[in-house]
Amino acid sequence: MDKLTVIKIGGNVIDDPNALKRFLMAFAGLAGAKLLVHGGGKIATQVADKLGIQTTMVEGRRITDQPMLDVVTMVYGGLVNKQIVAKLQALDVNAIGLTGADGSTVLAKKRPVKDIDYGMVGDIEEVDSGQIQFFLRQDLTPVFAPITYSAAGELLNTNADTMASAIAVDMAIHDNVTLVYCFEKKGVLKDPTDDNSVINELTPALYAEYKAAGTINKGMIPKLDNAFKALENGVSKVIICHADELAKAVNQGAGTTLRS
Amino acid sequence: MDKLTVIKIGGNVIDDPNALKRFLMAFAGLAGAKLLVHGGGKIATQVADKLGIQTTMVEGRRITDQPMLDVVTMVYGGLVNKQIVAKLQALDVNAIGLTGADGSTVLAKKRPVKDIDYGMVGDIEEVDSGQIQFFLRQDLTPVFAPITYSAAGELLNTNADTMASAIAVDMAIHDNVTLVYCFEKKGVLKDPTDDNSVINELTPALYAEYKAAGTINKGMIPKLDNAFKALENGVSKVIICHADELAKAVNQGAGTTLRS
Repeated sequence: MDKLTVIKIGGNVIDDPNALKRFLMAFAGLAGAKLLVHGGGKIATQVADKLGIQTTMVEGRRITDQPMLDVVTMVYGGLVNKQIVAKLQALDVNAIGLTGADGSTVLAKKRPVKDIDYGMVGDIEEVDSGQIQFFLRQDLTPVFAPITYSAAGELLNTNADTMASAIAVDMAIHDNVTLVYCFEKKGVLKDPTDDNSVINELTPALYAEYKAAGTINKGMIPKLDNAFKALENGVSKVIICHADELAKAVNQGAGTTLRS
Repeated sequence: MDKLTVIKIGGNVIDDPNALKRFLMAFAGLAGAKLLVHGGGKIATQVADKLGIQTTMVEGRRITDQPMLDVVTMVYGGLVNKQIVAKLQALDVNAIGLTGADGSTVLAKKRPVKDIDYGMVGDIEEVDSGQIQFFLRQDLTPVFAPITYSAAGELLNTNADTMASAIAVDMAIHDNVTLVYCFEKKGVLKDPTDDNSVINELTPALYAEYKAAGTINKGMIPKLDNAFKALENGVSKVIICHADELAKAVNQGAGTTLRS
């Protein structure tokens, strides 16, 4: 089994040109097969504002009507994705920018309307891990924008954390997969006000305890639920760390490591 | 040698949803390996207007400063490209959307400033035909946006006609290539006011005669120069036809066929 590192970066890195530059250099330096999933950042909201399209967020998720889908497709699938690809090329990484529609890599289904109508949002149905492996075997490094497609040929906005987790799980059929979530903190913190209170290891039992005590809450819960689900489904290791500590986290250990 | 059809569509097809739908169905129906290069259309200008970015054209070419490059990357590389890819997937074509940066397929150099500073515009240096053939052999259908990249990791705006011609020429090392330019007329016309005055065949000698007589002029000249250059450099056949006549032009003959 080959090793594969699946890395997700969020908007905070994309919104900061220097942070992005540092991250891409660290990413380029990682040994072995790797794959990047990026989020969107504030640029989509800024572009939408200028185009007169209103941004509506419900519980941290963007409501995606057709005009907002067009913005997200432009900004995530076009601007952010292609800028990352071109920068990686200059760092000698043969990157290939993809949405789920490209090479039919990530098929989704429009989320059914229950309490909330999320609009053009996709829940992932199927990852074509064979297609992704075929790119990796040719020394191509896939860079995914968080956009999927439906069998009807619609583009769909998809959460980048979920996309990274789904890809990692399906790639685990072929490879020994480490999934790394890079974000703005040094790891999962015991005390949100103390950046050095990183929890080094987290098991499902410890996670339950921290949740019950209110130590882990809010935005970390869906992220960690996604992460533990990946571990349950064949991913070897999940790391949650600061984008600036990617190399250290992968090579020596830093941030929070999740174990099943 | 395998057969390959390289097809270029312009903005007039992209700007008309029904024309695009008809074109994509015809494209999906074409037998054998194929590859699409698309132009941009009016959407980039509309988005730029709304974002308060001024569009400057010199001799039909867009002056591309950094804000305009961002718009073009969003609209061509994101919105237009991914919508085409998703629609082709629904037509059972395993499309993959690419800029020149993706898989380092089309490397360019920023155009030197002489009389006019075109800004972030790329002149093509190298097409990686091996990489493109590798996609085709896996039954992937490349869909190129007219954007390239430099060795320094800059994205560059590139004329779609030129990009189609450069790709066709380099693919002719491996394949028997037909290059098809789809546009809004039925072919090269003897009389621009008469849509049925199509010149069926054009040789370099005939082209020179028509140019001298003023029958062929303006926008057709760079298109035909590109086309004859492709023929001189190994492309087997060039067809110039209406987007609605793609299938007829490829399978039976329609529009203007260029011969060397």
